[in-house]
Amino acid sequence: MPRISQKGESMPQSPIRKLVPYAEMAYKKGKTVYHLNIGQPDIKTPEVALDAVKINSLDILAYTRSEGSDEYRQKIADYYGKHDIHVTKEDIIVTTGGSEALLFAFGSIMDIDDEIIIPEPFYANYNGFSTASGVNIVPVISKIEDNFALPPIEEFEKLITPKTKAILICNPGNPTGYLYSKDEIKKLAQIVKKHDLFLIADEVYREFTYDGVTHYSIMQEEDLKDHAIMIDSVSKRYSMCGARIGCLVSRNKQVISTALKFAQARLSPPTLAQIASEAALQTPQSYFDEVITEYVERRNLLIAELEKIDGVKVAKPKGAFYCIVELPVKNADDFAQWLLESFDVNGETVMVAPAAGFYSSPNVGLNQIRIAYVLQKESLIKAVNILKEALKIYKD
Amino acid sequence: MPRISQKGESMPQSPIRKLVPYAEMAYKKGKTVYHLNIGQPDIKTPEVALDAVKINSLDILAYTRSEGSDEYRQKIADYYGKHDIHVTKEDIIVTTGGSEALLFAFGSIMDIDDEIIIPEPFYANYNGFSTASGVNIVPVISKIEDNFALPPIEEFEKLITPKTKAILICNPGNPTGYLYSKDEIKKLAQIVKKHDLFLIADEVYREFTYDGVTHYSIMQEEDLKDHAIMIDSVSKRYSMCGARIGCLVSRNKQVISTALKFAQARLSPPTLAQIASEAALQTPQSYFDEVITEYVERRNLLIAELEKIDGVKVAKPKGAFYCIVELPVKNADDFAQWLLESFDVNGETVMVAPAAGFYSSPNVGLNQIRIAYVLQKESLIKAVNILKEALKIYKD
Ligand SMILES: Cc1ncc(COP(=O)(O)O)c(C=O)c1O
Ligand SMILES: Cc1ncc(COP(=O)(O)O)c(C=O)c1O
Repeated sequence: MPRISQKGESMPQSPIRKLVPYAEMAYKKGKTVYHLNIGQPDIKTPEVALDAVKINSLDILAYTRSEGSDEYRQKIADYYGKHDIHVTKEDIIVTTGGSEALLFAFGSIMDIDDEIIIPEPFYANYNGFSTASGVNIVPVISKIEDNFALPPIEEFEKLITPKTKAILICNPGNPTGYLYSKDEIKKLAQIVKKHDLFLIADEVYREFTYDGVTHYSIMQEEDLKDHAIMIDSVSKRYSMCGARIGCLVSRNKQVISTALKFAQARLSPPTLAQIASEAALQTPQSYFDEVITEYVERRNLLIAELEKIDGVKVAKPKGAFYCIVELPVKNADDFAQWLLESFDVNGETVMVAPAAGFYSSPNVGLNQIRIAYVLQKESLIKAVNILKEALKIYKD
Repeated sequence: MPRISQKGESMPQSPIRKLVPYAEMAYKKGKTVYHLNIGQPDIKTPEVALDAVKINSLDILAYTRSEGSDEYRQKIADYYGKHDIHVTKEDIIVTTGGSEALLFAFGSIMDIDDEIIIPEPFYANYNGFSTASGVNIVPVISKIEDNFALPPIEEFEKLITPKTKAILICNPGNPTGYLYSKDEIKKLAQIVKKHDLFLIADEVYREFTYDGVTHYSIMQEEDLKDHAIMIDSVSKRYSMCGARIGCLVSRNKQVISTALKFAQARLSPPTLAQIASEAALQTPQSYFDEVITEYVERRNLLIAELEKIDGVKVAKPKGAFYCIVELPVKNADDFAQWLLESFDVNGETVMVAPAAGFYSSPNVGLNQIRIAYVLQKESLIKAVNILKEALKIYKD
């Protein structure tokens, strides 16, 4: 029997993969499971996007240009303009989700065994894209005590080797909810310029910032023209994760022409989803205002409820819809499994994502979980109450 | 300025890339250009597929399972059953086009510097997927004189090294239109079993077979259970290239669980397109009958017209909608450029794909072009007439 590849063997699994069978057992037993573990918002997709697909008049569902349709790229450029990001459609390649934009970025700037520095905890699929690209992640630890702020510049500089090609940040962050300040972005700009690295920023949560703080994009740093690569997506912004539309944005012409070759090999991003995404750009501001209000309320409620629990520490998120929570347990993996397997409050339990999977350093974050606040407020209250009751009786 | 990757530099460009500016110049001069160079069918998408999207009632366009929705995978398995391919939904991973299925297959079974043997001429994007995966293509030449039949087994065996992991065929073939016989598939089965290799078959043109010959899939070889990986796509079958739905099919559990990890990293295939693709499975047989009749007429007409031209040799396609044509010119690249730049018949000219881009051996196929018969018959007649007039006066 022929063997699979070493690369395939070392492809990581999702941090919650091990919990899935336990969740299934919980369903079978008739338990209700509150899912605090997922990144799929429960917010409705803007009608203007859904309607555009319903009234489309295509009679052949044809390929679009590999870089995405001209009309759509022009409109994305206009959208960025409103966010003080000045790019043209030539700087944009439409991709199949932010996921594909990350893959194209990795492939375009890194070879086998090259290194990319990423503040951890980080979005777990960066591991998958790195393995698929044969690239090594070098983590730099950001700490819950600091609310996951940018680690000091020296920490980055210590890690830079001749193989280092890029620094990748997620802003606002999944799983931390951290929002980098303008000052922090400028510090990163200095490092990448000094060491001639790329700076990739995954800004798929750009719109989700709270407390009146505005997002500062790496693309606003005019000086980073040749260094900056932005990853974006419609998935979270318009709650249309299933569309599979994102984009890679850079003013570096070589990066764009290289990423375009990867794009051409796979022919075209999805056509129906481009129709939906183009229309989504007309979403009224009131939609975002409502969504942000909802997330802020959820966050405030979640944090307030969590802080009532003895021994629990929370990093208050300033963006996105995740937060990292430190629990008074030794191993959050075991705790998460126990919640599904052996615990319930009136037939209800919760599923959380153990945070160790978001760290690439071993034995870090073992007592942390990630909570996504993509549930209604009533459900969040119930879910946190379950956690509270569980911690009362749980023994490591 | 930071440098792009060597991988990115060596990503190949499309074989017609160099011609695009000349086509644009031709448009500017007001010329009509018949596109014999593309793989985008002009056939209408089945209404049942387009309608399903229009009447969908989703209010959140959410991710589906990474392997595709259960319902859709079950229906694909049923569809295969009707084609004497017996698989379950567990053997299927839904992908973003056949393109992504190829990438997942390459990543799952091959590491850096591994080798894959492919009869050439082959679908040019296999080059892109190989480069992206760090894999080397080892071509085995199939010849226009033999109508592009399977090269003799000895030719394959000569090329097998310890690094060889797979043989990839395209059946029916793009760009050759060749359809492998049951006997040829059995020969391949012998080789891969003897040398413990994978056999990947790109069967995206399965439905397009002519002259009453039926397609024989590698999945019909029960013996190949652990060796066979089939690549499929809705793109051509239902003329819905823009949907971006394909699949990877294998009875080898390890291959499926490995490919699933690549699928999980990118989260989900497109949701709207899965709705369209699931509905497309209800396309009435009459649709295919009409499409096949149309392609057969086009093919017959094209071949008949081409054979009237002095010095032109055509390999008669038995499937798909492409054929390779040998021209009485030294360099088809130059000829194709000249057609766009300097030639017209009453303001009309043609764009063809020089075939050298479909070979990976250097200096092979220099006098060949690929013609796709995705145009109406009247346009095909005009286009071939333009070629004929052009060849009368063209000088290398
Ligand atoms: C930080 C981050 N980046 C990228 C993605 C990829 O999303 P998509 O491919 O749906 O655009 C996600 C999805 O959860 C994410 O959280
Ligand atoms: C032989 C072959 N395989 C795979 C593909 C990929 O098609 P898609 O990604 O649209 O399914 C094509 C498209 O032209 C093709 O000709």
